[in-house]
Amino acid sequence: MMNVNKKVVIVGASGYSGAELASLIAKHPNFSLSGCYVSEQSLDKNKSLSQLYPEHGVLLDTPLLPLTEHAFLDINEQADFVCLCTDHQVSVELAPKFLAMGKKVFDLSGGYRLASSADYEQYYGFSHPYPHWLEQAEYGLAEWNAQAISQAQLVAVAGCYPTAALNALKPLKQADLLADQQVIINAVSGVTGAGRKASLNTHFCEVSLAPYGLFKHRHTPEISQYLGHDVLFTPHLGNFARGILETIYIQLKPEVTPPQVDEAYQVLADEPLIRLKGAQLPSIKSVAGQPFVDIGWQQQGQQLIVVVAIDNLLKGAAGQALQCMNLACALNSEQGLKGAW
Amino acid sequence: MMNVNKKVVIVGASGYSGAELASLIAKHPNFSLSGCYVSEQSLDKNKSLSQLYPEHGVLLDTPLLPLTEHAFLDINEQADFVCLCTDHQVSVELAPKFLAMGKKVFDLSGGYRLASSADYEQYYGFSHPYPHWLEQAEYGLAEWNAQAISQAQLVAVAGCYPTAALNALKPLKQADLLADQQVIINAVSGVTGAGRKASLNTHFCEVSLAPYGLFKHRHTPEISQYLGHDVLFTPHLGNFARGILETIYIQLKPEVTPPQVDEAYQVLADEPLIRLKGAQLPSIKSVAGQPFVDIGWQQQGQQLIVVVAIDNLLKGAAGQALQCMNLACALNSEQGLKGAW
Amino acid sequence: MMNVNKKVVIVGASGYSGAELASLIAKHPNFSLSGCYVSEQSLDKNKSLSQLYPEHGVLLDTPLLPLTEHAFLDINEQADFVCLCTDHQVSVELAPKFLAMGKKVFDLSGGYRLASSADYEQYYGFSHPYPHWLEQAEYGLAEWNAQAISQAQLVAVAGCYPTAALNALKPLKQADLLADQQVIINAVSGVTGAGRKASLNTHFCEVSLAPYGLFKHRHTPEISQYLGHDVLFTPHLGNFARGILETIYIQLKPEVTPPQVDEAYQVLADEPLIRLKGAQLPSIKSVAGQPFVDIGWQQQGQQLIVVVAIDNLLKGAAGQALQCMNLACALNSEQGLKGAW
Amino acid sequence: MMNVNKKVVIVGASGYSGAELASLIAKHPNFSLSGCYVSEQSLDKNKSLSQLYPEHGVLLDTPLLPLTEHAFLDINEQADFVCLCTDHQVSVELAPKFLAMGKKVFDLSGGYRLASSADYEQYYGFSHPYPHWLEQAEYGLAEWNAQAISQAQLVAVAGCYPTAALNALKPLKQADLLADQQVIINAVSGVTGAGRKASLNTHFCEVSLAPYGLFKHRHTPEISQYLGHDVLFTPHLGNFARGILETIYIQLKPEVTPPQVDEAYQVLADEPLIRLKGAQLPSIKSVAGQPFVDIGWQQQGQQLIVVVAIDNLLKGAAGQALQCMNLACALNSEQGLKGAW
Repeated sequence: MMNVNKKVVIVGASGYSGAELASLIAKHPNFSLSGCYVSEQSLDKNKSLSQLYPEHGVLLDTPLLPLTEHAFLDINEQADFVCLCTDHQVSVELAPKFLAMGKKVFDLSGGYRLASSADYEQYYGFSHPYPHWLEQAEYGLAEWNAQAISQAQLVAVAGCYPTAALNALKPLKQADLLADQQVIINAVSGVTGAGRKASLNTHFCEVSLAPYGLFKHRHTPEISQYLGHDVLFTPHLGNFARGILETIYIQLKPEVTPPQVDEAYQVLADEPLIRLKGAQLPSIKSVAGQPFVDIGWQQQGQQLIVVVAIDNLLKGAAGQALQCMNLACALNSEQGLKGAW
Repeated sequence: MMNVNKKVVIVGASGYSGAELASLIAKHPNFSLSGCYVSEQSLDKNKSLSQLYPEHGVLLDTPLLPLTEHAFLDINEQADFVCLCTDHQVSVELAPKFLAMGKKVFDLSGGYRLASSADYEQYYGFSHPYPHWLEQAEYGLAEWNAQAISQAQLVAVAGCYPTAALNALKPLKQADLLADQQVIINAVSGVTGAGRKASLNTHFCEVSLAPYGLFKHRHTPEISQYLGHDVLFTPHLGNFARGILETIYIQLKPEVTPPQVDEAYQVLADEPLIRLKGAQLPSIKSVAGQPFVDIGWQQQGQQLIVVVAIDNLLKGAAGQALQCMNLACALNSEQGLKGAW
Repeated sequence: MMNVNKKVVIVGASGYSGAELASLIAKHPNFSLSGCYVSEQSLDKNKSLSQLYPEHGVLLDTPLLPLTEHAFLDINEQADFVCLCTDHQVSVELAPKFLAMGKKVFDLSGGYRLASSADYEQYYGFSHPYPHWLEQAEYGLAEWNAQAISQAQLVAVAGCYPTAALNALKPLKQADLLADQQVIINAVSGVTGAGRKASLNTHFCEVSLAPYGLFKHRHTPEISQYLGHDVLFTPHLGNFARGILETIYIQLKPEVTPPQVDEAYQVLADEPLIRLKGAQLPSIKSVAGQPFVDIGWQQQGQQLIVVVAIDNLLKGAAGQALQCMNLACALNSEQGLKGAW
Repeated sequence: MMNVNKKVVIVGASGYSGAELASLIAKHPNFSLSGCYVSEQSLDKNKSLSQLYPEHGVLLDTPLLPLTEHAFLDINEQADFVCLCTDHQVSVELAPKFLAMGKKVFDLSGGYRLASSADYEQYYGFSHPYPHWLEQAEYGLAEWNAQAISQAQLVAVAGCYPTAALNALKPLKQADLLADQQVIINAVSGVTGAGRKASLNTHFCEVSLAPYGLFKHRHTPEISQYLGHDVLFTPHLGNFARGILETIYIQLKPEVTPPQVDEAYQVLADEPLIRLKGAQLPSIKSVAGQPFVDIGWQQQGQQLIVVVAIDNLLKGAAGQALQCMNLACALNSEQGLKGAW
């Protein structure tokens, strides 16, 4: 384990998830950054990451290279792992190219997460061009799919909202405690979740707590599929930079008692990046900048409210991608995430 | 109507609701501030309101007087209306004294809102000492109880969360569209809702989006009673100063169609301080500093999500108190609230 | 005075200053909005102002009209006053057209503020095409130029930073208390000051307290010229939406005493929108959403620190434009600004 | 160096600096937390640090022990280093007790920073009871006093504002570039700088950009003494949690050129926790959560503006205390601070 040393390439390194991942890789004892890429058209190409993110000065004085034909040759030669921090459709097209080189690919987009090509037509508006790879992709929800992740060539790192929701709900589903009724997930995300592109939605003076994407957000099928239960998922944008808080309303089966709920969560008790808080409830502040999932719950009769919080850029993106890479190297899942504490 | 001129006293004027109400009264064409009081023990006594709130300099260079024995005599002599911006139990004790003087009393606390003394034991932890007045108190939800408010001697101005929830839900209830299932209300309030008292909870560095009071908040029975329907109400504290946003999850009766929902909301269409937004969804930013209730909704099958937003200090407290006073004088309900636009 | 009724047109109404001004006009007892215009190319044309600013729903359900050829005819026919909330160079070109129609023009840009065409070459990078109008324009600093403003056909409403700085410094200059040494102005503005256009600078996650425009900001000559004294002006962008705070470091002439300083500020004592706070120091919170200039000061030896705060959109833009319009109608300078309290 | 292993006690661990330091120690490869103490009267005693700071769950599930008689015995037996994160006067009394045990003491308060007992009378309002220790204390400004720090038994870790100011100014002073004129330091600190105690000043709804402590802040003499130059220091409280930004106005000696200024800063070029940014200017965002000092500067004629930023809890408190401890063990100065990147 000591002599693991993997070379990692990040494509789409200029965005919030990409830069976060770059900083984690740069501090990781077993990984090194072998290249940070942006699209050939990007205005950020040839800038250094620390120009875009002065907070990463010294650590990331790395240039953002354009993803040219030649870049593919360099990546082929040098990289062990390729991380895609690109838009869905860009990831869909890029992944097979790196897979064909024999690289392990960790895709942080939604391009390979859903079960079937038909799902992509319905929820993403395009027909998936690589159903073969879609089938082979393993879902990168670290606590629940570690074995498969460790073997996969293509890991579809779980989405931010689903990571929180699934860690909160799968213990209950697995213990068969959920009544046959839709689970309601009320979620609030920080503004980094909306990306770094300048837009009126993310203008400092326009951001405010408000819901969006009712009934149709792409994370709805992602949560339902990997939970195996119907959910109503309603995201909101909140006026903070980092973090996701989900308040989840659950109807338990008749006679389910609080000790049964507590017991169900024990399945996560030994996970290094899960903090089970029992009746204490999580907050955004407690997870911002942290690699953890915080889960708290309270019950009244057959009604259970679970509150779950993560940092959307860490456990909800770059942190979990790193966990998946750790698993692929048989390292401890939390390796290199202590630095983010 | 032109020559209405009422003298208003505010007790508990140093808190956020009290100061907000003082500023509304000071700008109102038909009302004048005849005295701002704090408890005899208050450290703020004899300071001016504008010392505590420099933003109100010039407008509120009014002294905060201690509520001494003598003060009661002054109030008896001078005031027409007495507004109580005091804690529940203080209001419970003070209201009868001013009622006995023949004053109209507008209580912004929860001291006279619930239906029966038994409710107080269950939800507030004390037995209500004045069941007679409790019975006579009218609930100050301006759009729904105007006639009674205009006649009442004691108005129990509606709570902040209930004001939002009830305006969002009563149209549906009245049109008989709600399925016989609990309505779920996920609510987030700004920090002014927690009051001006220094505490770790309201420390700038500790505030963060987080839930509180699960299953047992006092506004739960207030909403249920005045709606006539079971609700699960979950409040959160958010990292902003003013505003409440509620995302409400509703199961409609079978066959209820979107036009029926739209039609139901028409009952509020002519209310000057209600903004029906249809499929457009409210945000905190749109109501902060505004006297309005913003209501938007979207439906999928029999599932309806209603989003409602108010400024907790205006429509959720001082603004609605002012509406009630306007009604008591047969003025337009929105009189003097234009200044807050 | 009672029967003053002026029709006001706003060009560039979709930006923060324009929308703020529209809301002030809409509530003003003597003015009415006769048209809100945006450029023909604007993506906002034909939207209503309240679509862009839901907080102004009901008040400003006014359409944003494109400034076509035909629009000029309409304005010519209907408007008394034309307010330009447009970029410098747009204002420079538009003002003469409306002036030629005989309208009173209130320009909120910097297009007509500096003394000479040469100044424009040096500080704005263009040669001023209308030196004739430049000469006739009166500087719209309401407390200091009321007489000229009331007569002018073209008012160059003072800039946001200069409004704060000049009200803080002119009393001292006028009393001849300033030593012959550069005055240092450290200023921080809220993000509305950077405009509503989406950019990385105003992205919620990128905004942070930081200086900009060292030694070369266009408000430097504006302050120097109207003060008649050399200043070093350093602006910063702060992480709040509205407000400007300036901390001003002054060397007083030998022997100048605190009572002399206090006395100097008495020149502003009767101004309705100036709050002299003496040794108490202003803050952003005290002025945000308020039409006032707050000024406080403390002295040690010959060193004087003056702290001044305004709302950049009110006293620093729309509020002062309204004051100028009031002056042009011989109304009270603060008329219609009470509503913003 | 590999086998350095020091046991560290933190007294006053419940405050922001103390908790930050505890988290740094807990992650440091060569140090371990041997005890976290609070005063016997503290309401936080026997709670765990992670109860107070849920973000530190897992890492700091350490109990906060009361500093009883018995605790002193334990500390005597177990600790190598004692860190005081207590108030000035508490530190002044505690330090000699631990020094008498032979411990190395790192005091984060101002209790041992100034040169003489007389300074304490003038600026802190008490006569220093331990002039002997005051004389022996070394000033913990890591980049400038490393040799002395490494030998000292008592290190008076530099104050937050002075750490920023001195790193920005000492290079210029040392190169003899400063004209004989007061340097003006305009500083803004985040709210953690005001401590964790609940007070109206730190109430979420009351915090706003505002100056305080004009002419008399205790950091004024601290900066002057260690710079050897007269300064006018004006702090402000800003509406953000962490970080300090100082904008410093300097008059250079005649004929000093930009290359000379650049050259002067080269004295810091090899320091691992200093980022020299030349004409690029720092911001709060770039340093919050980072262990660095960022320094940028621009010159016009003989006027130089230097902008410097730090995280007040890291480089301004706990981070620098850790550097001092590293120096005391002959470790790299930045050891264990990478984790905070």
